[in-house]
Amino acid sequence: MISPADFFYRNRDIAGFTNPARAIFSSMRELVENSLDASDQSRVPPNIYVRLSYDGEESSEEADVYKLRVEDNGSGIPPRHIPSAFGQVLFGSKYKLKQARGTFGLGGTMAILYGQITTHKPVHVASSTGTSRIYRYKLMIDIQRNRPVILDRKIQVNKERWRGTMVEFWLEGEYSRAMPRILEYLKQTAVVTPYANITFVDPKGRLYKFNRVTSKMPRPPKETLPHPHGVDVETVRRLIQITKCRNMVDFMKTHFHRIGERISHSFLKFAGMDEKKNPRKLEPHEIVKLVRTMKKFERFRSPDASCLSPLGEELLKAGILKELEPEFIAVCQRKPSTYSGHPFVVETAIAYGGNVPRKDDIVLYRFANRIPLLYDEASDVSWRIIKSINWRKYKVTSDMPVAILVHLCSTKVPYKTVGKEFIADRPEVKNEFLNGIREVARQLRRFLSKREYREKERRRLATFSKYLPKIAKFSTELSGKEKEPDIRKLLWSVRKFEEEKD
Amino acid sequence: MISPADFFYRNRDIAGFTNPARAIFSSMRELVENSLDASDQSRVPPNIYVRLSYDGEESSEEADVYKLRVEDNGSGIPPRHIPSAFGQVLFGSKYKLKQARGTFGLGGTMAILYGQITTHKPVHVASSTGTSRIYRYKLMIDIQRNRPVILDRKIQVNKERWRGTMVEFWLEGEYSRAMPRILEYLKQTAVVTPYANITFVDPKGRLYKFNRVTSKMPRPPKETLPHPHGVDVETVRRLIQITKCRNMVDFMKTHFHRIGERISHSFLKFAGMDEKKNPRKLEPHEIVKLVRTMKKFERFRSPDASCLSPLGEELLKAGILKELEPEFIAVCQRKPSTYSGHPFVVETAIAYGGNVPRKDDIVLYRFANRIPLLYDEASDVSWRIIKSINWRKYKVTSDMPVAILVHLCSTKVPYKTVGKEFIADRPEVKNEFLNGIREVARQLRRFLSKREYREKERRRLATFSKYLPKIAKFSTELSGKEKEPDIRKLLWSVRKFEEEKD
Repeated sequence: MISPADFFYRNRDIAGFTNPARAIFSSMRELVENSLDASDQSRVPPNIYVRLSYDGEESSEEADVYKLRVEDNGSGIPPRHIPSAFGQVLFGSKYKLKQARGTFGLGGTMAILYGQITTHKPVHVASSTGTSRIYRYKLMIDIQRNRPVILDRKIQVNKERWRGTMVEFWLEGEYSRAMPRILEYLKQTAVVTPYANITFVDPKGRLYKFNRVTSKMPRPPKETLPHPHGVDVETVRRLIQITKCRNMVDFMKTHFHRIGERISHSFLKFAGMDEKKNPRKLEPHEIVKLVRTMKKFERFRSPDASCLSPLGEELLKAGILKELEPEFIAVCQRKPSTYSGHPFVVETAIAYGGNVPRKDDIVLYRFANRIPLLYDEASDVSWRIIKSINWRKYKVTSDMPVAILVHLCSTKVPYKTVGKEFIADRPEVKNEFLNGIREVARQLRRFLSKREYREKERRRLATFSKYLPKIAKFSTELSGKEKEPDIRKLLWSVRKFEEEKD
Repeated sequence: MISPADFFYRNRDIAGFTNPARAIFSSMRELVENSLDASDQSRVPPNIYVRLSYDGEESSEEADVYKLRVEDNGSGIPPRHIPSAFGQVLFGSKYKLKQARGTFGLGGTMAILYGQITTHKPVHVASSTGTSRIYRYKLMIDIQRNRPVILDRKIQVNKERWRGTMVEFWLEGEYSRAMPRILEYLKQTAVVTPYANITFVDPKGRLYKFNRVTSKMPRPPKETLPHPHGVDVETVRRLIQITKCRNMVDFMKTHFHRIGERISHSFLKFAGMDEKKNPRKLEPHEIVKLVRTMKKFERFRSPDASCLSPLGEELLKAGILKELEPEFIAVCQRKPSTYSGHPFVVETAIAYGGNVPRKDDIVLYRFANRIPLLYDEASDVSWRIIKSINWRKYKVTSDMPVAILVHLCSTKVPYKTVGKEFIADRPEVKNEFLNGIREVARQLRRFLSKREYREKERRRLATFSKYLPKIAKFSTELSGKEKEPDIRKLLWSVRKFEEEKD
């Protein structure tokens, strides 16, 4: 058997480390996302500092070796976990039933692994949870054994009570090709994280700053119990192994999401299962039957969304206004929904004009659990939805500067790759995307119609006001009256209409 | 840390086990491909028997539980490896540098794992390597520990010296939705494996037989050494750990692909490295320099293709003729090429008419290492190539029954997912696909031109032969001659032309 580290080393393509350009992008992204997750935990608006530099050491003639440093003010990592967190694939604190950016326990270590196999240099980590000490490690990964190798460990006094994590390592990369994606990634991250300060210094020393416009953070997600519609036999088997419940009524109430006394009774009746049965005594075929009956029982309450942390309409608006400065914006947060027992929330937005790029087509920004998805757009379900909509109905033409933003929050984002590139096609998710996009598109149509109407009126009135004095004069002569009517009042209303437009 | 089995259990989407329909397709596919690989090893034309049936046991009222049985006459599995081969994720015999269908060490176990988490039943395995014994196992997987749990083990006398493997397990599935894909998969497998007998009995008892048309098998791939352009620091570090060579000249010659005495010397001179240096004494930065210099040195011989096993033009033609019975066919095998040190061969074919489905577009059949790729066509590099070609240049219109087949053989197929759905975009691979498709398209153009010309000629001559007797008579009268010319000869040549057409 090969170790998981060895597996992902051999198949790094599937984790997004295909080539030097992609690898430098993926490395930065994984570390930034870990930092953002750490800030969410600490409930302090994140300050993230990213520095990519040419390596100034012995191989300085090699333009393709970079040093990447990512620093945050997040929750910090308990010292005993530091070696595993950076030197072991599939080690993770995120295997919980609540929304997080990273969920594979893979990204950060893959970046370091990639750095190691291209430069053979250790990673430097410093972290403090805000105690009186800072822990510094120099690590490498034993890929064949999937174990961290500690080369050096230092403890420093933390006078300033700094809290956060700093990671620094070397990797082979191709910045010139990666640059557009990296900048796009940071910009989109700024859209979806308007409460973050992100600073990026690139190898040429250019400084990119994305400043927060608010210090309000989205409500944090709570850890939740599995919903009975989303469990499989393995989950139930594991629950039975650890449960302290002595009967099925308690078992159902204790280990599943939103099951109370009444529902527990009525479900067990529906399943034809003895309420007093000890769950530890369930036979394999009874477990299978239990799981299958759970999927069929329709009276379980749908999952609540407390395990999710959508951005909310206010923050979403703030993020878009900050980065795109559009002429018009509409945002929409859909009600929580569920697919195969996994709760999810869809947020959508549409922006028009301002700094929205004018392309041949609608610009699509995709997000999942507050991370931007940049690759394989055409495979994403939201792209297909946008293609399926008749945009003329919404008065949108392909030459207009229109951007659509979709954001999926879920305890289980249906990714198709561990590289987090695109979202698979689930009917329930698709439906919410479609309705969310339609909702904001309708608002854009109202805006465009109104503008169209005003434009027409403006032109009509301009013509009118040009000829009005002459007509007034002519009519006065025609009627044989001596004094012309007071047209100032009329012209004033025309002017007022034009002013209103702005 | 979670175990690799647990990781893939939680993220089964990325291995192609998204839903019950997809899971039943993926399960069958993974087991059939393991069987085909086992037959390639034994050099005996494969007989593969696949049986999918509704489960007749206690939960027979549940229409969605199926029993899947796959049996082959392949090499068999040594008894000590059976538990791990089916009960441990990432256990594999295929982590070698030669072409094989499966390379992730994942598929077969994932199928069994999926069966276990949906039905909680063990897998039954019987296998013999052709000795006097057959070994039978009843296994489950301890997912949290990634270890096989042996429930039962029996040894039987192998009177008939049967050799092969039989796997049988239960899983939740949705056959009605999976059926079209399964049949398409088997048909395409038959195209690319014309030397195999494949029998499939579906849950309704319907029998599908794909018979071999040849017993000639493609040349088997040889295990190879890594090409110096394709290695990274980790590979070299591992080689240094195991090498018995005492100097760099021997080290280069022994561990890398196609390096002889002369090239070894000239490379080490190019790298400015002491030829007598003991490889075990290389410093980390020297290893990095060695690897980087290897990538730059242009005089290494390009990899040979003995580690690959393309189908060959003859077998490819046989497979297509057998399944599509086209009116016209052209096949092409490109010369071996290489991307990042990985050798690859591209084969292409074009078929016209016969049983080629007539769709709105060209039908694309994609293969990699002799397995059909059925999902996510639009993300595949070959699809984008076909879209980029101006087909009118080749006299192909969208209403014609035209199928294109592409086959990539490589020690490392650049898949984007472990579900083996589509091939990533590598410039060298793209180029070979493009040239291969153009080559067969040109042949199709010649065929279509010729047919077009014949069609035109036929119509012209038909008109001609209709009026010829009259013209002859009229001319005779006009010229005042008494006897008409012998037009039989002329008409005969018309007839001959028409006959030639068939």
